[in-house]
Amino acid sequence: MRLDAMDLEQLEALRLRLIKEYDKYREMGLGLDMSRGKPCSEQLDISEDILQALNTTKDCFAKSGLDCRNYGLWDGIGEAKVLFGELLDIPPEQLVLGGNSSLNMMYDTIARAYSFGFFNSPRPWCRESKIKFLCPAPGYDRHFAICRLFGMEMINITMTPTGPDMDEVEYYVQHDKAVKGIWCVPKYSNPQGITYSEETVRRFAQLQPAAPDFRIFWDNAYAIHDLYEKGDELLNIFDACSEVSNPDIVIAFSSTSKITFPGSGVAIMAASPRNLEFMKEQISIQTIGPEKLNQLRPVRTFKNADGVREHMKKLADILRPKFEAVLEIFDKELAPYGVGSWTRPRGGYFIGFDTPEGCARRVYQLCKDAGVTLTTAGATFPYGVDPKDSNIRLAPSYPPISELRTAMKVFCTCVKLAAVEKILEG
Amino acid sequence: MRLDAMDLEQLEALRLRLIKEYDKYREMGLGLDMSRGKPCSEQLDISEDILQALNTTKDCFAKSGLDCRNYGLWDGIGEAKVLFGELLDIPPEQLVLGGNSSLNMMYDTIARAYSFGFFNSPRPWCRESKIKFLCPAPGYDRHFAICRLFGMEMINITMTPTGPDMDEVEYYVQHDKAVKGIWCVPKYSNPQGITYSEETVRRFAQLQPAAPDFRIFWDNAYAIHDLYEKGDELLNIFDACSEVSNPDIVIAFSSTSKITFPGSGVAIMAASPRNLEFMKEQISIQTIGPEKLNQLRPVRTFKNADGVREHMKKLADILRPKFEAVLEIFDKELAPYGVGSWTRPRGGYFIGFDTPEGCARRVYQLCKDAGVTLTTAGATFPYGVDPKDSNIRLAPSYPPISELRTAMKVFCTCVKLAAVEKILEG
Repeated sequence: MRLDAMDLEQLEALRLRLIKEYDKYREMGLGLDMSRGKPCSEQLDISEDILQALNTTKDCFAKSGLDCRNYGLWDGIGEAKVLFGELLDIPPEQLVLGGNSSLNMMYDTIARAYSFGFFNSPRPWCRESKIKFLCPAPGYDRHFAICRLFGMEMINITMTPTGPDMDEVEYYVQHDKAVKGIWCVPKYSNPQGITYSEETVRRFAQLQPAAPDFRIFWDNAYAIHDLYEKGDELLNIFDACSEVSNPDIVIAFSSTSKITFPGSGVAIMAASPRNLEFMKEQISIQTIGPEKLNQLRPVRTFKNADGVREHMKKLADILRPKFEAVLEIFDKELAPYGVGSWTRPRGGYFIGFDTPEGCARRVYQLCKDAGVTLTTAGATFPYGVDPKDSNIRLAPSYPPISELRTAMKVFCTCVKLAAVEKILEG
Repeated sequence: MRLDAMDLEQLEALRLRLIKEYDKYREMGLGLDMSRGKPCSEQLDISEDILQALNTTKDCFAKSGLDCRNYGLWDGIGEAKVLFGELLDIPPEQLVLGGNSSLNMMYDTIARAYSFGFFNSPRPWCRESKIKFLCPAPGYDRHFAICRLFGMEMINITMTPTGPDMDEVEYYVQHDKAVKGIWCVPKYSNPQGITYSEETVRRFAQLQPAAPDFRIFWDNAYAIHDLYEKGDELLNIFDACSEVSNPDIVIAFSSTSKITFPGSGVAIMAASPRNLEFMKEQISIQTIGPEKLNQLRPVRTFKNADGVREHMKKLADILRPKFEAVLEIFDKELAPYGVGSWTRPRGGYFIGFDTPEGCARRVYQLCKDAGVTLTTAGATFPYGVDPKDSNIRLAPSYPPISELRTAMKVFCTCVKLAAVEKILEG
């Protein structure tokens, strides 16, 4: 029976039953961590071959003849650009390959804009009296942390099933020249697993910002991270931008962190020729060049884009049952009670969950006290403040499936308990 | 016979002979590059084992049990800190291990100071009306490029055989609160190969800056890069700073780039607990963590500090004959003419050379036209301007020794020719 159909007596009886259930879980002394979107060891083991991709001196030379052990090359090696360019459907010459962290590349891009601006900036961002950033929310906490560190004012943008609410986006971008950027995770968004619709992407490409140096930060972290044979399709934003002669508005990011080893992947940035030209001057001063052997390793291991795609299927085979287990438990434990709502992503690393309003922090705390660590309630919103106190990011990838099932059962009990409490308090 | 003892006729005869010599070199169609301090392939080959340091999944775990393939750990893995700490004589807990480029760590440290300041900054550096930086010169062009990019005013500091002129340093640091930092390469300095004396280091440690957030950028790039069994000794600046209760004034950098592979080393930063604590907040937002497998590789390969020291001897065996060849040619080709002066470093990657005043750019151009590329004249000074137009950085490491000899003979001819021309013009 749905909670909203229960009378007070039924709710009170349910509450007592849930408390018993909850206490039973608490006594188990669990220690389960579902807080971050970390691939599990079993997934990493599939990439073991990459450790032996380069065994001897002669393996260390790029096709161009470049000795990848030595210094140099600000933007990464050619054959790795070709491989990632094919996977992302972006011309290799528009790519810059960095170190192991695409987050670091995003941070650096913001940091350079802050200190020096972009090529079409009236002045460096640090010389502006105020900088604002649009943050589709729920979103990725680490994006928001960067904005906060640089003292930018974050503006919440509503997420819809087709991506950010583009009416809101257009309003701010076109009317406020303090608005300098927006964070997007356009495919299998963090945390909801939403893929932006074709219309959404086209409206992004067509933005006519008040600030000449407004940029879309297009964090395509899950570009090829489908759970099913047929994944979501995302319109290529570079193509969409070209069609409307707006090539400089977007800077895209991706990485191989969730393809091979999370801590030892290759970070990828893509931008227009004018954006790249301007960055080159600065990046060439910042570093002696990226780690090139790690760029060579995936090329030698996977050979080509099809090799990577085959590999992604093996990773999906490990991840898919975990997503399905979570959804199965929600369908069984929560749906009949009409409590909470959740997404059913076809890829990525997260499931977005909404408790009834005002319950997320209570659910987080109940889970924590029972030994199940979730992403902190509120973390998916700028400043850690979820206005409805309802969103919780679920990261099913890391725990073994049996632990995941236990954790999700605890979670469902906590959600129901918090929901019942809320009604009874109400 | 020394040039300054020659009469006009003798000089003119010498000039004609040198032009003949020079033309002969030009006809050889040489293509030699001595512009950068790149280790040569033969040196890199000695580190081949490091490619096989991690072969299987089970090799990828740190002593702590941490899976180095996965995300996390902002400051690097414990056993690598222990190894580098012993080599640098710095407590491991004062180290931060980064990616492959210590230059990038220095840039980032400046960039963070620019955007956020240090813990004891009155305000971020970008909010100061002017920032000045002391640049012992000749020095490292990439240090100066960072200052220039951030719009800092660079002040030349005279280099002496015991390090920067400390009277000048103290004057600026103690009297001008716009002076926020100084670049130092304290051991085997780039480009002169000078090691700072004990007194110099102590005077650095005792600085009482006008700016509370003044920092010494201590780029100890050649800490263990001796050419001879008995290398130069550098006083430990952290010890010297502790003795005078001035622990926060210095931030040190080093790397394994010239120990293993230049492009795939581990960058190392060392700082006081208060400096580290403040950095941690920012670095944890900047990146998901450094590449940890590359931190594990040297530990597995060398086992301990003695293993690294043995390895450095093999590298020195390749480098030493190159340095000695250069000095031998100078002693034979230049000393009898009393032309030019040069250093005789006992380690590092460079030899500092001074032509007679007003000749460096001419020598650079003559060499270039004869197919020998040197570090650009002027590059060793801020803004690329050598006030005496005399300093040229020589980097003997990269070319094979036979090519190096040829290049140095060309160089000597060019130096003599430029010197004779100068006198005849005079």
